Amino acid sequence: MLILHSPMDMHVHLRQGDMLALVAPHTARDFAAAVVMPNLTPPVTSLAQVLDYRQEILRVTGESFTPFMTLFFRAYSREELLAARPHIIGLKLYPAGMTTNSEDGLADMRQANATLAIMEELGIPLLIHGEGCGFVMDREAAFLPVVREWAGAFPRLRIVLEHVTTEAGVKLLDRFENLFATITLHHLFITLDDVLGGLMRPHLFCKPVAKRPEDRDALRRAALDHPQAFFGSDTAPHPVTAKEAPGCAAGIFSAPVALPALAGLFEELDALDRLQAFVSDRACAAYGLTPMARDVRLERSAWTVPQSIGCVVPYLAGQSLDWRVVD
Amino acid sequence: MLILHSPMDMHVHLRQGDMLALVAPHTARDFAAAVVMPNLTPPVTSLAQVLDYRQEILRVTGESFTPFMTLFFRAYSREELLAARPHIIGLKLYPAGMTTNSEDGLADMRQANATLAIMEELGIPLLIHGEGCGFVMDREAAFLPVVREWAGAFPRLRIVLEHVTTEAGVKLLDRFENLFATITLHHLFITLDDVLGGLMRPHLFCKPVAKRPEDRDALRRAALDHPQAFFGSDTAPHPVTAKEAPGCAAGIFSAPVALPALAGLFEELDALDRLQAFVSDRACAAYGLTPMARDVRLERSAWTVPQSIGCVVPYLAGQSLDWRVVD
Repeated sequence: MLILHSPMDMHVHLRQGDMLALVAPHTARDFAAAVVMPNLTPPVTSLAQVLDYRQEILRVTGESFTPFMTLFFRAYSREELLAARPHIIGLKLYPAGMTTNSEDGLADMRQANATLAIMEELGIPLLIHGEGCGFVMDREAAFLPVVREWAGAFPRLRIVLEHVTTEAGVKLLDRFENLFATITLHHLFITLDDVLGGLMRPHLFCKPVAKRPEDRDALRRAALDHPQAFFGSDTAPHPVTAKEAPGCAAGIFSAPVALPALAGLFEELDALDRLQAFVSDRACAAYGLTPMARDVRLERSAWTVPQSIGCVVPYLAGQSLDWRVVD
Repeated sequence: MLILHSPMDMHVHLRQGDMLALVAPHTARDFAAAVVMPNLTPPVTSLAQVLDYRQEILRVTGESFTPFMTLFFRAYSREELLAARPHIIGLKLYPAGMTTNSEDGLADMRQANATLAIMEELGIPLLIHGEGCGFVMDREAAFLPVVREWAGAFPRLRIVLEHVTTEAGVKLLDRFENLFATITLHHLFITLDDVLGGLMRPHLFCKPVAKRPEDRDALRRAALDHPQAFFGSDTAPHPVTAKEAPGCAAGIFSAPVALPALAGLFEELDALDRLQAFVSDRACAAYGLTPMARDVRLERSAWTVPQSIGCVVPYLAGQSLDWRVVD
């Protein structure tokens, strides 16, 4: 038996409507709380939208689950952010066009400074999809200079480099106390080889794309040991029709397997005692959160991940996992 | 009007049965000859199979098209190769497991030496799928030391590095007079960005996978100027059901668009006068071939590539091309 105190998934896409109703219960069952991304259509850019979306989520999940809400980054006034602050955990910045529903993202990073200064003053964290332009394998590296600049220019602004995928990204954590990173489940397992080194696997296609073996190794080391790195699954469901199609959508639906697969990996790495830090403690410290009073228990008992959950194919579909979440 | 004398596609997969009947006419319509790869199931490893397969092809294409046949590389005796020599253009070597139907390929490159020595003596070229083990973006580079070793150890053996995809591969041509390379149509156009930099495109998935922009630029320079580089489309049809599926098969069916798209590219690069060398002259020189007495004419006249040809989605489906082959 493994008991996790207040496990939190610090990066989820819960979608809306029918998809929300399908996927949110999986996150709510296994996690006490989750950081909910605001890349809806249209994006969540007002307090009213935040509150509406929060209610929509809670109607599905019930009150035992805490959705930490985010605003989609744009230029906000001090008044707007002051009013939103009690209701959000941070602002999520997307460079324009980098992933699903990010067309409204920021095109010129220099336009962010005024809002970043207000966020720093008000103690509101910045969550970043850290990819710049250019060749797909270099996009995270291309964005790191922006992260460096902001982390240095706004030393009291807490910045989270979301779904970090490269060794270079992980190394940057050592240079700034105010810089943090989430690491997904799938980037701890797969590299580009899994995506298209053999046959091509649309269900392993995500943004940022999985990188090189040495990058994955760096992510694993950080997940085990780095005080500024914590878990954010980036669970991102798409209907199977959008995945198994000529223009396959980017995203991996990992919510149903996240804790069991993490327990299996940490056990394999002889580090099961460090899972609590990765899935809760370090995120609490980074965000200054009080842990929820909710434990989640896993037992060592094999099960097979279903081939589909509604219209969505989950990560690790059809595979056997050694750990399961129990009530 | 553009007249090409004896255009040849020096690397095609014509398959068998119904698929052969569907795809071979496209190659036979636009090319005077083509080098036919032997990775059937089972692979073509005997003279009897070569002759049977050649007959199967000619029944579909008619005699105005010349299929240059190949044997699948294994350990052959001098007697076998001497008997096969009048009927083949070379032996195709696949490292085991690197692409479609290559499971019977060579696992240990050191086992090749005896057969390579016989091929050198008999003047039979070696065609190589040049990928080694390891991370997918590094596999061609990982194989180049083997190419270097063989090109140096067997200086009279003509070696063709098939579907070269990297700048490093192109550069190796300068070191060995007996080393040549084919370049595909699609590698002159796409990079990994096109495959999964935006949405994921199964119809652009091939082996070797498309590489970086600087690699593509090197391939373009070689296509225009390098005397040891010539055209081999690697046209590789799969049914749409095998492409738009969770385990998408590797291969791009480019035969129906190869010459028109090449004409468009060479025109764009202000090098239309060099297309003849790329699609015929340099290959004749490399293999010591007498050009077929057949011209193929293209005219500048727009057409739209069909969305599908039978059960296969062609490269550039739905796009408009400026050149077309005319009778």
